Amino acid sequence: MIETLKPRIKFLKQPTSKAWIEQAIANLDTILIDHSHCERKAAGAAINLMFRYPSSAKLVRTLTAIAKEELEHFEQVNQWLERREIPLQPLNSPPYASKLNKQLRHNEPERMLDFLLMYALIEARSHERLGLIAEHCPEAELARFYRGLMASEARHYGAYYVLASTYFDTEIVNTRLDELATVESEILATLHPEPRIHS
Amino acid sequence: MIETLKPRIKFLKQPTSKAWIEQAIANLDTILIDHSHCERKAAGAAINLMFRYPSSAKLVRTLTAIAKEELEHFEQVNQWLERREIPLQPLNSPPYASKLNKQLRHNEPERMLDFLLMYALIEARSHERLGLIAEHCPEAELARFYRGLMASEARHYGAYYVLASTYFDTEIVNTRLDELATVESEILATLHPEPRIHS
Repeated sequence: MIETLKPRIKFLKQPTSKAWIEQAIANLDTILIDHSHCERKAAGAAINLMFRYPSSAKLVRTLTAIAKEELEHFEQVNQWLERREIPLQPLNSPPYASKLNKQLRHNEPERMLDFLLMYALIEARSHERLGLIAEHCPEAELARFYRGLMASEARHYGAYYVLASTYFDTEIVNTRLDELATVESEILATLHPEPRIHS
Repeated sequence: MIETLKPRIKFLKQPTSKAWIEQAIANLDTILIDHSHCERKAAGAAINLMFRYPSSAKLVRTLTAIAKEELEHFEQVNQWLERREIPLQPLNSPPYASKLNKQLRHNEPERMLDFLLMYALIEARSHERLGLIAEHCPEAELARFYRGLMASEARHYGAYYVLASTYFDTEIVNTRLDELATVESEILATLHPEPRIHS
């Protein structure tokens, strides 16, 4: 029996539902495959953002460190897959990221702010959900692995927020974060039928 | 006075011209900026290739290691830029990569082979040219840095070739490598007027 959840990550408007936790714990193998894809996508996203803003030194420095760490996690998740004899395989993405992408404004500098806050939110949600897996996973060693990942996921969403605050006024950042966080929680209000980190 | 060069990297059909070395050594600051972009692009290319072939375990494992190493080098080159007080900045790309891209066949599995061999050639050329900078650079410490990078660049082109040979017959690999290497040398036969790693 899974207890009612309280919102624990300050960026997020709504906490993850019990339904998601039940879906994830009942489908750990699929969640691991999807998690592997998420880490690779997160590394790719950080690198793409550097391509977009190659002159912003602090952004480039921060995102290089994030990309390296995501690749480390990608390797670690893939080792878990190997250990469980689950072959690497493609998975359909849930609509989460493409729906969030639609919120990106098209003109600069607004687009840069939206990118940074969208990634902050995705990392914050990942942090929350990996924490929930750590808490509810019946396999002790896998639970420990997920607990181990949480610190860096928290660092990542903090880092994206700090970057936003480096390049934009705090008030503008917080207003826009509030808007995007509302959309983010609305997207997840309906559970996606396929088990995913962001279903 | 720069001596005549012999082709030293076995994948390459033609060695780099003396004109390129003179251009590079006379424009080390620009070369460093371009080199930074090259490392970031190489990391992005490795990650994109994993996106394309997510089920190929050996490819994913090898490219993760390469991407991590390219990000390390990216950081190191950026430290050199900082030290020389050169701000990060965008640079127009030379036509090299886009011309090579046109050689990629559109159907699988040929496209996969072409990607692997194209990256093998780009890495082989980078290896050759970073070695030439190491050899001719008048600044001892920068020369040492470039010498230090050479071992991993050599590992990278070897790794791409080994991946090609993992998924395709050796004879098919070598025939296609020969074709692409001919085009690669033709592209560089005319020196691009702007100093770049691949001008």
